[in-house]
Amino acid sequence: MNDVPYKIYLDEKELPKAWYNLRADMVKKPAPLLNPKTLKPVTAEDLRAVFCDELVKQELDETTPFMPIPDAVADFYKMFRPSPLIRAKFLEQALGTPAAIYYKFEGNNTSGSHKLNSAVAQAYYAKAQGLKGVTTETGAGQWGTALSMACAFFGLDCRVYMVKCSYEQKPFRREVMRVYGGKVTASPSMETQVGRQINALHPGTNGSLGCAISEAVEAATCNIGYRYVLGSVLNLVCLHQSVIGLETEAALKKYGVKPDVIIGCAGGGSNLAGLIAPFMGAKLRGELDCRFVAVEPASCPSLTRGRYAYDYCDTGKVCPLQKMYTLGHDYIPSPSHAGGLRYHGMSSLISELYDQGQLEARSVAQTDVFAAAQQFARTEGLLPAPESAHAIRAAIDEALECKKTGEKKNIVFGLTGTGYFDMFAYQRFNDGEMVDYVPTDADLATSFAKLPDVV
Amino acid sequence: MNDVPYKIYLDEKELPKAWYNLRADMVKKPAPLLNPKTLKPVTAEDLRAVFCDELVKQELDETTPFMPIPDAVADFYKMFRPSPLIRAKFLEQALGTPAAIYYKFEGNNTSGSHKLNSAVAQAYYAKAQGLKGVTTETGAGQWGTALSMACAFFGLDCRVYMVKCSYEQKPFRREVMRVYGGKVTASPSMETQVGRQINALHPGTNGSLGCAISEAVEAATCNIGYRYVLGSVLNLVCLHQSVIGLETEAALKKYGVKPDVIIGCAGGGSNLAGLIAPFMGAKLRGELDCRFVAVEPASCPSLTRGRYAYDYCDTGKVCPLQKMYTLGHDYIPSPSHAGGLRYHGMSSLISELYDQGQLEARSVAQTDVFAAAQQFARTEGLLPAPESAHAIRAAIDEALECKKTGEKKNIVFGLTGTGYFDMFAYQRFNDGEMVDYVPTDADLATSFAKLPDVV
Repeated sequence: MNDVPYKIYLDEKELPKAWYNLRADMVKKPAPLLNPKTLKPVTAEDLRAVFCDELVKQELDETTPFMPIPDAVADFYKMFRPSPLIRAKFLEQALGTPAAIYYKFEGNNTSGSHKLNSAVAQAYYAKAQGLKGVTTETGAGQWGTALSMACAFFGLDCRVYMVKCSYEQKPFRREVMRVYGGKVTASPSMETQVGRQINALHPGTNGSLGCAISEAVEAATCNIGYRYVLGSVLNLVCLHQSVIGLETEAALKKYGVKPDVIIGCAGGGSNLAGLIAPFMGAKLRGELDCRFVAVEPASCPSLTRGRYAYDYCDTGKVCPLQKMYTLGHDYIPSPSHAGGLRYHGMSSLISELYDQGQLEARSVAQTDVFAAAQQFARTEGLLPAPESAHAIRAAIDEALECKKTGEKKNIVFGLTGTGYFDMFAYQRFNDGEMVDYVPTDADLATSFAKLPDVV
Repeated sequence: MNDVPYKIYLDEKELPKAWYNLRADMVKKPAPLLNPKTLKPVTAEDLRAVFCDELVKQELDETTPFMPIPDAVADFYKMFRPSPLIRAKFLEQALGTPAAIYYKFEGNNTSGSHKLNSAVAQAYYAKAQGLKGVTTETGAGQWGTALSMACAFFGLDCRVYMVKCSYEQKPFRREVMRVYGGKVTASPSMETQVGRQINALHPGTNGSLGCAISEAVEAATCNIGYRYVLGSVLNLVCLHQSVIGLETEAALKKYGVKPDVIIGCAGGGSNLAGLIAPFMGAKLRGELDCRFVAVEPASCPSLTRGRYAYDYCDTGKVCPLQKMYTLGHDYIPSPSHAGGLRYHGMSSLISELYDQGQLEARSVAQTDVFAAAQQFARTEGLLPAPESAHAIRAAIDEALECKKTGEKKNIVFGLTGTGYFDMFAYQRFNDGEMVDYVPTDADLATSFAKLPDVV
């Protein structure tokens, strides 16, 4: 193993030529999406009004294991991929662990995260379909940034509905999107019917992700030549994110490293699904013995404390219902600085794997997460996004466990992005003013009571 | 040339083992620093009170061509080096140029720039000398961030005097430094004698780089076990930055690409000196025919409109005098968003090469610079720092010239960093509110009149 370089960059010719569809290797597949009006499984026809045709196919295809990455997408990927697989040797030294820690770093691009992997694919298919543009919502702004970059590249109009409080509190993210030509609108706006309604009902509201989704969907369906795109949760997004896992697999194989545990943070679940995909596939086929760990914030513990049930994906109930681990579509997570992990549910793919016992889950408190982030930054040099730091926390805990047992495990985790636009949160931590929030059982019972009655 | 990958990453074994000291290949060397009290060439003894011993040796050594990179520094370099040399093929397509454009990207680290190359070396030598810590000043914050990262790694105390207006207007940079354990003080402070004096004389002042330097030097010389470190201008910094050029040279040679023109932005001059070092050495030895272009802001045109004369490096006149192209130590550049290029002088190395006609210089207006930055971001995906975008502007102009002449030149430029902490400036540009400033001849005559009378 002395030959393993500190950072493994695959050659361009070693890059994946196709995305991997993990569902093809699952005996029991994730439950189908339901049409919110009929409560019957959605059809391609239902989805084509909102999403691009090719993406609808990808969403519904449970059997094709590999789907070719189009040349134009592969070209764009070369701008920021391969991402490095890095041996965290300085962190190992600081911990005094016998374990080897590797991390796949997805932050080496201006969007600052893995979101670009799916944004470029979705923009490409929109362009290939001859559309004028796409609409989306963004909270913290990572997804909106990634989509703006992809649309600039393919010459598509990009309309981003940004939750008003973020629009005002995170002006820098907004400006990055504008550099790439993204048209950013504070939501609720006066541009859409639903926006005007909400503004009339709640004058001076700061907006919400649920409202921004509704505006983006309306803008897509009411404007000719537009479709709506989404940055997480969906099967198609998990598919595109498999490029993370495929590169990781190729890099580890190249140097003969067998992973013992693979760790990722989990919000909507797409980065985790992408990271573990080929390894989980191998496990399901009986070819690999490996643990998988999803890490979520204690303030929004959908896997560790949620119910596995059909629920609405959005508060406006305009999107299909999904069977997933959920805290209830009305659940409002307490303030957490990991905005990307504040989703009430979880992708159906990750949910089904968790339900089958193929995946472990744990929740962590944010002060512990930031302590891990600080230790990582000081030893490995990179300032992580708060979301990514959830995986760091769990990786450090695994490595410390190895220190006790003397095991030389190979720990692999996903470092999804950088924290350069999250310095308010770090300031809180630096000043010792960060607070942990955990919902009570009574809080959760209230939101579980509003789960729809669908079996 | 079809074999050239889109991004060239050297293998770890191809990384430079030694820094290159360009002065060794110069027949006429840069003029020596002068002691500000005696106005005689500084001695090692003079410098050792302020700087680490090994760094003093490097600063004064004009004859040793290669100086070994210590193992601990090489280890740290592996965290963020090699940096990629990227073929800007999407920018080329957008320009329709027959030229090939390559850029060496130094922004893949949390400090966001090339500054880390020298910060880690300087922190290492401070630690090796058994010091407790180092002091420095920072304006925009890139250098302070890089030094904080390096000090966290080596376990050194790091005290950063940050110009008060930046401290208040750029809280995010400040917080990044704090994550790495840097002790950041707004300058002028009440901690130093000079700070208290300035606060008494100018109540409510916003500070200046000159004042912050004076405080940092005082803190280094009045505290046992501390030394002062500087992030640009000095020969020793140019030496460390040669790692940029050496990697670029190795990557181009690997694929048989001969550069026709090499372009870098120039503030203090260290990134440019590092990028061009091995190529300029080859030119001086008669082994390479290549043009070199320094790009500076029209608001602070030290090479294109300055005088080649001895001048003070700092407004407080505590540092040695240097023979350089200068606008005068009292010159206050008009507001520019490229804070890293607002220095009144230029490194003596770059100044001497320019005086010998080995190097061209041009100045560019900042609205033109941001237009280039936007075009680059939209085609190549990376959001550049405003400083770096000066080099992009000149590279695009060279490529457009090739379009007219049909020449298939190989254009290489240095992309020193990312603009993620410069979004106020981009907002100005996005809103069409950016203004260009150019000093009048009368402005310059006033500051030239204060140049010291030293030959």
